[in-house]
Amino acid sequence: MNNFSYLNPVKIAFGKGSISKLPELLPERKKIMMLYGAGSIKNNGVYDKVMAGLSSCNFIEFAGIEPNPLYETCMKAVEAAKKNGTEFILAVGGGSVLDAAKFIAAAIEFAGTDPWDILASDAPVRSALPLGTILTLPATGSEMNMTAVISRASTCEKLPFSNPLVYPVFSILDPETTYSLSVRQSVNGVVDALAHVTEQYITSGSGTPLQDRLCESIISTLIEEAPKILSDPKDYEARANIMWCATNALNGWCSCGCVQDWATHMIGHELTAFYGLDHAQSLAVVMPELWRINMHSKESKLAQFARRVFNVKEKSDSRAARAAIAKTEDFFHSLGMKTKLSDYGINGEEAAGKVYERFMGRGDVALGEDGDINAAKAREILLKC
Amino acid sequence: MNNFSYLNPVKIAFGKGSISKLPELLPERKKIMMLYGAGSIKNNGVYDKVMAGLSSCNFIEFAGIEPNPLYETCMKAVEAAKKNGTEFILAVGGGSVLDAAKFIAAAIEFAGTDPWDILASDAPVRSALPLGTILTLPATGSEMNMTAVISRASTCEKLPFSNPLVYPVFSILDPETTYSLSVRQSVNGVVDALAHVTEQYITSGSGTPLQDRLCESIISTLIEEAPKILSDPKDYEARANIMWCATNALNGWCSCGCVQDWATHMIGHELTAFYGLDHAQSLAVVMPELWRINMHSKESKLAQFARRVFNVKEKSDSRAARAAIAKTEDFFHSLGMKTKLSDYGINGEEAAGKVYERFMGRGDVALGEDGDINAAKAREILLKC
Repeated sequence: MNNFSYLNPVKIAFGKGSISKLPELLPERKKIMMLYGAGSIKNNGVYDKVMAGLSSCNFIEFAGIEPNPLYETCMKAVEAAKKNGTEFILAVGGGSVLDAAKFIAAAIEFAGTDPWDILASDAPVRSALPLGTILTLPATGSEMNMTAVISRASTCEKLPFSNPLVYPVFSILDPETTYSLSVRQSVNGVVDALAHVTEQYITSGSGTPLQDRLCESIISTLIEEAPKILSDPKDYEARANIMWCATNALNGWCSCGCVQDWATHMIGHELTAFYGLDHAQSLAVVMPELWRINMHSKESKLAQFARRVFNVKEKSDSRAARAAIAKTEDFFHSLGMKTKLSDYGINGEEAAGKVYERFMGRGDVALGEDGDINAAKAREILLKC
Repeated sequence: MNNFSYLNPVKIAFGKGSISKLPELLPERKKIMMLYGAGSIKNNGVYDKVMAGLSSCNFIEFAGIEPNPLYETCMKAVEAAKKNGTEFILAVGGGSVLDAAKFIAAAIEFAGTDPWDILASDAPVRSALPLGTILTLPATGSEMNMTAVISRASTCEKLPFSNPLVYPVFSILDPETTYSLSVRQSVNGVVDALAHVTEQYITSGSGTPLQDRLCESIISTLIEEAPKILSDPKDYEARANIMWCATNALNGWCSCGCVQDWATHMIGHELTAFYGLDHAQSLAVVMPELWRINMHSKESKLAQFARRVFNVKEKSDSRAARAAIAKTEDFFHSLGMKTKLSDYGINGEEAAGKVYERFMGRGDVALGEDGDINAAKAREILLKC
């Protein structure tokens, strides 16, 4: 096990009716900006519940955060927040709204010239507004971590940043808010959560048996519960279990002391940036081929995955590992999630070329737990997708 | 899944050499009381490392915290801390030293007449000194929770309290500090951690599949790793895995949204208070018989435990559940942990009578996840132990 530090100060309020706890969680006498997306919360009752919780607060609203939230939109929110003297951000929505809130919180206080540098050149974040979240789409884990991913329309870029100052002070998770998600949103959430776990688990690492089992626990539960929400979108228990799995998948707990991959995400981000592919779709496309190409280093963990999660009885590690990849693809297909670029009308050669050029434009890259995925290997992976 | 709240603000610094991080973790310019036990840290090098970390600090030492830390000793520490103007407590040792630190931190600031009331009558804790810990014996999970258990010599009582104000600010976990533990201490730690998990897992509860699997993950890892530290006490990886299992076993994570039992602990505490039985020994004695007597409500979870952790193939839940109990006892015996009162020279009838009288003296009790373990049932359990 590698040495590690862990600190996660997020207060979770989980369960049916938990939005009613908003007044006791919000800071007193602070000017609040309530941030949300395209307005689906106005159709599922969440908006009204939040308004009830904010009734005695001084707040403004900022609507219109899009999926894969845009730097351009965030900067409009920064301007509105500065004008209003906002002291606290309340993000209501899925990972995109939550990620936008984190970036806005850091951008408002940013001492440099252009807050884009936080994403593009790792410019230091020395302070940030406090923020709280009400999660309505379990997927990204943003509700209990310190990471955000922001896109820039003008340059087709999508970049992450992490900073402990943007941990939410609190996150409210009410599974009932997820009843009204579309099938596509629900499936995207399950695939995204699964991919977060595999980035921390399907690696060349070893010697972390508890962390491995935590990862297997989350994936097994996702596989068990996902079909239930497709057949009955109002299955409270299944919604609750999936919501809690998604939080566990990326709050840092299951990778304590582990090596981590994240190359699938970094390549997937480019597909989203260039082609607008949903984040989860990009992961479902890249992950299986990335595993196949890095089989030499991931075989042992993939074989364990096959045996423990998919109950594969194969004695050969090599065959078990290949079975794990096939069964992961089968699971995605069972949810209606497609796993080939051509399924989304994307030309693989073109995509491989674009991503190669972009990575080379950054002076090449060294992705994955062993740093062995460079621009050329990313191109090779995408040619097989 | 039940509704729940979760907030755990402890910063963990885990790994080889992590005591060297002490200076950056300690608050600046605060008067510190360093608390430790009988002095084993002077023989294994930990004391010297802590002294090096404290070299630029204003601190006093308080030594002599005993296993099952005594209220009487803690109150001497309170007096010394008040005299010195202590502003921060650094606990160095196992769960007993850490628990003592929590009680001392609360007792120093206690507004009532007698701090014993914090334990005996749930008197409110409204403030507490901040504290940090350096763990040298993985077992109680005290390093990442808000609970402490304190004994009173004069009345043979052993009582717990919990308060978020006594969460450690930081906990340093260096597995190398555990190399010098005796076999008895190491085994006690494994059994204690396992029992913490089963108190949260072997219940009448259902509908928490992820939490169940987290519990199974911890127990499976303990079973896998424990024999390694007995055959090679300096097996770093095994020591690290057991240390991390013990923290995971009682930091509140695996019981989020679950019902919990804790009757084994409450009955076990009385055996320790009356007879000085090691905490883990008391758990190993009570747990199997408590499960047998509450088989009607625990059968389903015990059967799952048998199949998933012990790989029992039995189709009948009833037989699988009984196999789980037998295999748990076998595991304890394999570590040299005895599971009968008579093994420890204790007369079962006498013990059953004493615990019955004590519980009745508190106006009877309603222990366990269903509140169905009263004084009479506790007596019945102990008569079978």
